[in-house]
Amino acid sequence: MINYPNGSKNILIKNKTKTQKEDIVYKNRGMDFENDINLSLNYFAENNLALILKRTTPINVVRVDYSHGARIVDAYFEKQSTTDYNGVYRGKYIDFEAKNSKSKTSLPLHNITPHQINHLEKVIKHGGIAFFMISLESLDKVYLLDASFVISFYKSKERASIPVSEITRNGIEVEQGYMPRYQILKAIDEAYFHEKDI
Amino acid sequence: MINYPNGSKNILIKNKTKTQKEDIVYKNRGMDFENDINLSLNYFAENNLALILKRTTPINVVRVDYSHGARIVDAYFEKQSTTDYNGVYRGKYIDFEAKNSKSKTSLPLHNITPHQINHLEKVIKHGGIAFFMISLESLDKVYLLDASFVISFYKSKERASIPVSEITRNGIEVEQGYMPRYQILKAIDEAYFHEKDI
Repeated sequence: MINYPNGSKNILIKNKTKTQKEDIVYKNRGMDFENDINLSLNYFAENNLALILKRTTPINVVRVDYSHGARIVDAYFEKQSTTDYNGVYRGKYIDFEAKNSKSKTSLPLHNITPHQINHLEKVIKHGGIAFFMISLESLDKVYLLDASFVISFYKSKERASIPVSEITRNGIEVEQGYMPRYQILKAIDEAYFHEKDI
Repeated sequence: MINYPNGSKNILIKNKTKTQKEDIVYKNRGMDFENDINLSLNYFAENNLALILKRTTPINVVRVDYSHGARIVDAYFEKQSTTDYNGVYRGKYIDFEAKNSKSKTSLPLHNITPHQINHLEKVIKHGGIAFFMISLESLDKVYLLDASFVISFYKSKERASIPVSEITRNGIEVEQGYMPRYQILKAIDEAYFHEKDI
């Protein structure tokens, strides 16, 4: 049941220059962030705390060979037109996108698509809870930032990124630990159900 | 925008015996049912009435050829371990599975998986709205049936199917029309928000 990674984020890479080490560690950070979110969500599902699942990456199937059952022999990955995650918590619809920022100063918005913005606007319109989970690598911190805040930045064309100072001021810090890796539900409680530990 | 099928369900097949005609018409009914649900959901999304989307069929990717970008050269379709559809309506999380029955007397349960039952139980536990949309071909009727009702049938091992009489008595009939093809939201209102047109 417990399938927790053995601290892969902190693997010590020996016999490399400092720059090489940083490169290797950084290269996997985005993947680690997603992996840690997935593990947190598994934990919530297994412990009946919430049911939030990662959406399957859409694949465009070009050709299927039916000679030995249905085998896909030509296909390609499509860009997600919605978000990475959705589900249910305390009766409410939850929808979020995870973004990792390597920058010390801001979260670039160039890899958020107009389709995703449109999707999140619709979620908000229908009363769902929509946010971004943002990993600020340089600070080793993770924030929950309401989607409406991100959307307004996205739409003010002058800015191609959200400054870190805005994220830390307007977001809610997601506590990090062991089980679950990220206290996502606690952050949702604080942001949307107005509950905060004393 | 409007991409409504030209009554493909009712295509008249000439120069065939009655049995042949029925075979051909029936073969496409399940697909038509899903297609009509998808069109109804598109209509709801475009008209800002709800945001309920079909889940992508999960595909297990075995081999990717990176010589010209990422091309999937070996993969296979996986069975959906959750349900076909989920989304948000009036702030609530919505989750449902579509089933088509060719039988005049019942809906067979053999193609509902334990994973799906488990998934729907979790949805209910977390306060989401969970149901089946059931097409009874022989009656040309569609019903919304609460998932908890289906789960209890599924779990009483003596029954491998739900009798049509139980579906019509305990379900809510989904009105059929042109735009949207299925009045799914109206049925949800009646079943879960206790609203009914007079």
